[in-house]
Amino acid sequence: MAITPIERTNVGKIVFEQLPDISQPERKECAHMEKKKWETIPLGNVKIKDNFWSPIQNLMIDKVIPYQEEILNDKVPGVEKSHAISNFKIAAGMEEGEFYGMVFQDSDVAKWLEGVADSLAVKPDADLERRADEVIEIIEKAQQEDGYLNTYFTIKEPEHRWQNLQECHELYCAGHMMEAAAAYYETTGKDRLLRVMMRMADHIEEKFEKELEHGIPGHQEIEIGLMKLYHVTGEEKYLRRALSFIEERGKNPDYFVEESKKRGWVHFGADPEDREYNQVHATVYEQDKAVGHSVRAVYMYTAMADLAGTLGNEKLYGACEKLWDNMTKQRMYLTGGIGSTAEGEAFTVDYHLPADSIYAETCASIGLIFFARQMLEAEPKGIYADVMERAFYNGTISGMQLDGTKFFYVNPLEVNPGVSGNVPGYRHVLPQRPGWYRCACCPPSLVRLVTSLGKYVWTEKEDIIYSHMLMGQEAELRKARVRAESEYPWNGRITYHIEARTEEAFTMAFFIPFHARNLAILLNGEEVNGQGIWKEGYWHLTKQWGKEEKLEIRFDMPVRRIYANQKVRDCAGCVALMRGPVVYCFEEADNGGGLQSLRVAKSLEEEIDTCQDGVLKGKYLLKVNGYRCTGGEDLYTEERPHMEKTRLTAVPYYAWGNRGIGQMRVWMLEDGD
Amino acid sequence: MAITPIERTNVGKIVFEQLPDISQPERKECAHMEKKKWETIPLGNVKIKDNFWSPIQNLMIDKVIPYQEEILNDKVPGVEKSHAISNFKIAAGMEEGEFYGMVFQDSDVAKWLEGVADSLAVKPDADLERRADEVIEIIEKAQQEDGYLNTYFTIKEPEHRWQNLQECHELYCAGHMMEAAAAYYETTGKDRLLRVMMRMADHIEEKFEKELEHGIPGHQEIEIGLMKLYHVTGEEKYLRRALSFIEERGKNPDYFVEESKKRGWVHFGADPEDREYNQVHATVYEQDKAVGHSVRAVYMYTAMADLAGTLGNEKLYGACEKLWDNMTKQRMYLTGGIGSTAEGEAFTVDYHLPADSIYAETCASIGLIFFARQMLEAEPKGIYADVMERAFYNGTISGMQLDGTKFFYVNPLEVNPGVSGNVPGYRHVLPQRPGWYRCACCPPSLVRLVTSLGKYVWTEKEDIIYSHMLMGQEAELRKARVRAESEYPWNGRITYHIEARTEEAFTMAFFIPFHARNLAILLNGEEVNGQGIWKEGYWHLTKQWGKEEKLEIRFDMPVRRIYANQKVRDCAGCVALMRGPVVYCFEEADNGGGLQSLRVAKSLEEEIDTCQDGVLKGKYLLKVNGYRCTGGEDLYTEERPHMEKTRLTAVPYYAWGNRGIGQMRVWMLEDGD
Repeated sequence: MAITPIERTNVGKIVFEQLPDISQPERKECAHMEKKKWETIPLGNVKIKDNFWSPIQNLMIDKVIPYQEEILNDKVPGVEKSHAISNFKIAAGMEEGEFYGMVFQDSDVAKWLEGVADSLAVKPDADLERRADEVIEIIEKAQQEDGYLNTYFTIKEPEHRWQNLQECHELYCAGHMMEAAAAYYETTGKDRLLRVMMRMADHIEEKFEKELEHGIPGHQEIEIGLMKLYHVTGEEKYLRRALSFIEERGKNPDYFVEESKKRGWVHFGADPEDREYNQVHATVYEQDKAVGHSVRAVYMYTAMADLAGTLGNEKLYGACEKLWDNMTKQRMYLTGGIGSTAEGEAFTVDYHLPADSIYAETCASIGLIFFARQMLEAEPKGIYADVMERAFYNGTISGMQLDGTKFFYVNPLEVNPGVSGNVPGYRHVLPQRPGWYRCACCPPSLVRLVTSLGKYVWTEKEDIIYSHMLMGQEAELRKARVRAESEYPWNGRITYHIEARTEEAFTMAFFIPFHARNLAILLNGEEVNGQGIWKEGYWHLTKQWGKEEKLEIRFDMPVRRIYANQKVRDCAGCVALMRGPVVYCFEEADNGGGLQSLRVAKSLEEEIDTCQDGVLKGKYLLKVNGYRCTGGEDLYTEERPHMEKTRLTAVPYYAWGNRGIGQMRVWMLEDGD
Repeated sequence: MAITPIERTNVGKIVFEQLPDISQPERKECAHMEKKKWETIPLGNVKIKDNFWSPIQNLMIDKVIPYQEEILNDKVPGVEKSHAISNFKIAAGMEEGEFYGMVFQDSDVAKWLEGVADSLAVKPDADLERRADEVIEIIEKAQQEDGYLNTYFTIKEPEHRWQNLQECHELYCAGHMMEAAAAYYETTGKDRLLRVMMRMADHIEEKFEKELEHGIPGHQEIEIGLMKLYHVTGEEKYLRRALSFIEERGKNPDYFVEESKKRGWVHFGADPEDREYNQVHATVYEQDKAVGHSVRAVYMYTAMADLAGTLGNEKLYGACEKLWDNMTKQRMYLTGGIGSTAEGEAFTVDYHLPADSIYAETCASIGLIFFARQMLEAEPKGIYADVMERAFYNGTISGMQLDGTKFFYVNPLEVNPGVSGNVPGYRHVLPQRPGWYRCACCPPSLVRLVTSLGKYVWTEKEDIIYSHMLMGQEAELRKARVRAESEYPWNGRITYHIEARTEEAFTMAFFIPFHARNLAILLNGEEVNGQGIWKEGYWHLTKQWGKEEKLEIRFDMPVRRIYANQKVRDCAGCVALMRGPVVYCFEEADNGGGLQSLRVAKSLEEEIDTCQDGVLKGKYLLKVNGYRCTGGEDLYTEERPHMEKTRLTAVPYYAWGNRGIGQMRVWMLEDGD
């Protein structure tokens, strides 16, 4: 524990040690919570070639990004008008007109650009890049003399700039555009947008250094954006500002109340007094429960974890650990969904995880992955990789229809048409995916997540290469080239072809999912019995790696019955099925209506079938024993329902809702033998 | 079917046949849906002397009525200020000041007066009567020259009278005061308040005859009030106006929208476009689902049923039957609670009966009893008596703490402290009864229900006396004096001592609860095997009754396992326990926390114990076999919960929440043997 945690009282006065030259990482012994001395692997260095993920990446690149581009340019009829590009053109003086959309409409363009940047790393596309360059040119023109960039305030209320941090998302939009700028620079080497956002960052720095020294964002995101600027430029001031936003938060729980009184106007009318919603009820070091708006929460935690890892700040890492534990051990759905209520799109209380009135916004699960990745960067542990995998294979991609044309905002674990989407308390839980949203945060965030998948597979530290995900891919790492073939998540068979680029010994550490059974690891065809060591869920093998090493990871993935903690009222008496990382659900399409009257049998006698046709073709379906309860017409009766044996079919949760409107349940009552 | 239904097109033009002299009811053969030719039995003629109900009546009379009087006079510290009497004094010019309270604050005084009137029939109290007379004097003085009576508009917005029927409850307050006036006249013979309300009724008549001919109340209640005026005065115009309000409703589904546009101001800001909430989406004849605000619904249905029975109007009775069926067969909780959502305090959709996010307002169950009683008056059927009993013994009296000091508005079938009363979607579901409410509709309504209990026991038609409830009492009927001793609801033992007052044969018809097992009826000590006939759940015995007849009704009341219809998602896998009419629930106080982790065993091996001490003393408790599931600390696990046998204790639902804050459940998961 050599590192002295940075004291909060030092904020703004920290004299940073010499930061590493990120292009020339030092090689030294890996210490606990060391200051980050390794470079994040560039996205272009990891090419996903995976049976499961590549088709989804291709869908994002070939279909969703162009579709979204059309939407941003208002060329898609019948969906919510975007006007987002026009807003920039108007702000740039290139077009006449009025601002239209949400106060954070700019962020839709930012997220699209970030997705484009990531997609260009996966699949270069000169024409797309040209169109992105054009958009960037417009953005540059929309930037004001003083560096300010935000079309809403530029067009509509220039006199109100920076007065309503609580509601008006100026920092949020800036953060997203910084993420886009960093990604675009990383992929294309072009720095036009990067320079725009560095100017904006400088503008923010000046504003918050001088006038708004205790200012904090209403919706966290700027912290992530600034950290990304820092990671590509090495400019400490961005890191310092990010840390300042994080540490300032909650110091004055009444900051937004005071801001609100001072300005005397409101935008949405959001409650500045709702301190937990705003995550200002305590400093980040004092917060020990995941509360408030769940997307904001995980965005904040992501930046905290990035800062903790980057600075080797144990105190901050400890704060992250507390929040991680509460969130993932008391407040997370089986699918990696978070947010138990639509009111405030928020966390509620421990073990309150209703399946049918759930929120579980797609963006929140994406943010959970961001957080997990930063925790893995700070300290590779299986508990982070496990949750990351859970969210990747379930609660994020469930947000998109399999054909890439429709999207969920809310990802329920149970849908009952007639109630869901209709009855108060369930109106937000739509039984099918709509085409687009007025508040279109989720679809573009899913694009940027999936196109940047390569960033989640590896962490390469001093002399350890960590593998977090069992994915088919080709990776150009510093110490090795690795090619992997994977049958995951349908089968536990992954083969790595490793070509070392150094003659020095180094460690390769593989996260082996906690669900793996009968694990066998073969090195060049021989079982590695006794070799390697286990640490935090990762199997480590240290050796001099040759030029043609073959490492095979094999394990069984039996169908698993999952039970929730007895404190979870909403899962009482229920079982859910998983196989590997994939959560299964039961749909009306396969099992008929009245899913609440079905029971999963204790003796499953499961069969695993690959779906042969239709929209679910190629996916592994489960058939298990169950019962159908039947009863009379009376509302209440003394007759115990009659149970009849039946076979039930379960489909991967992420693929639900692709066959018309019908009931769906993840948690099923269990009964009988 | 000799009666021609009244056509809606005739409204306002009906020439009524000669109405019967209600003091001299005709004696003739009972025909189906005849025009009502019998008098409702005056409350003073039925003295409740019942082990179960008398203590509750006494509590109402000795404790709640004086407590409420103090509240109305703002003499109780620490509860919501009422100001209701002051409002009347200010409107009367007797006091200076401002109006305070809800726009319908007057109705609190009306409901109190009605309760007082009923209580004076149960237990004369000269001092209370004198105080009530004084209040009535104030009310009389607050009445305006033109007959108008409403303190809000008299004090605050005289220029806005009758402009906002949708929101402003002028008709609602009038209706309640009419009920009070009728009850006070019935009990005391004093007609001062009656004359006030007849003048108000005339004022309304003039207003709605001339200016607001399509006007309808926002919150139904005036229809009940007018019918009560009609029943005590015999004045057809009141009946006609009630019918007009009923039949006008829904003819123009945009009535409130148009009214809203016309006046250009709002009170609460309630949505005039929410036609189902307002129950104006269709005419009452076309409505076939119980929708919208549940109290308003049952108040409307009550008046409809009263009109149907009074007029022999089969069409209207048919409309009532449709709504009754939908409400009681698809939308009613086991306890007789109605209203599945807090949003709009409303019904939702068929079979949507969540236990924990429920509304089930006390007033709504009371209104359900009003409706049931009017259906029984129109056509005595066991289905009405059964629901009436269900609401009486469960979902109404659960609204009051056993000591009469605190009250529920919402009557949940499940409470989970930490979530209930706290988390969005459950905030309205308080885990314990508060002292009073700003919108104090429920406590005084419960008072008037319980004090007027004697009205629910009997219907005496031409030559049939119907007994609807198995209650200890002394009744002075037209054809007989009846004294009953009852052990109900704890035991199925009721003994009637009948003294005929006529030598002519007549029929006595007893509702025998559907749950009765091993029924035995003894007449003067001999089993009546084969005697009597069954009709619609009533056992009829026609004979010349003597001066000293003893009729004993004996039946068993085993503990019953109740299952909900398979379509009720929220009761899936669950069982509830009832014994007789009493619904049982499980509380943390007896069973420890984590009720969701308990299971009721299929083999109950039940014991029935009378509680020996504490607040539940004298109540029958159940002990049954069950299981406690235990598991580890993990949020999700592959380990099936361990089930351990245990004994569980259930207490009468109405008595829940009297032993501190803790979990409570009516529906329990069932498992094991």
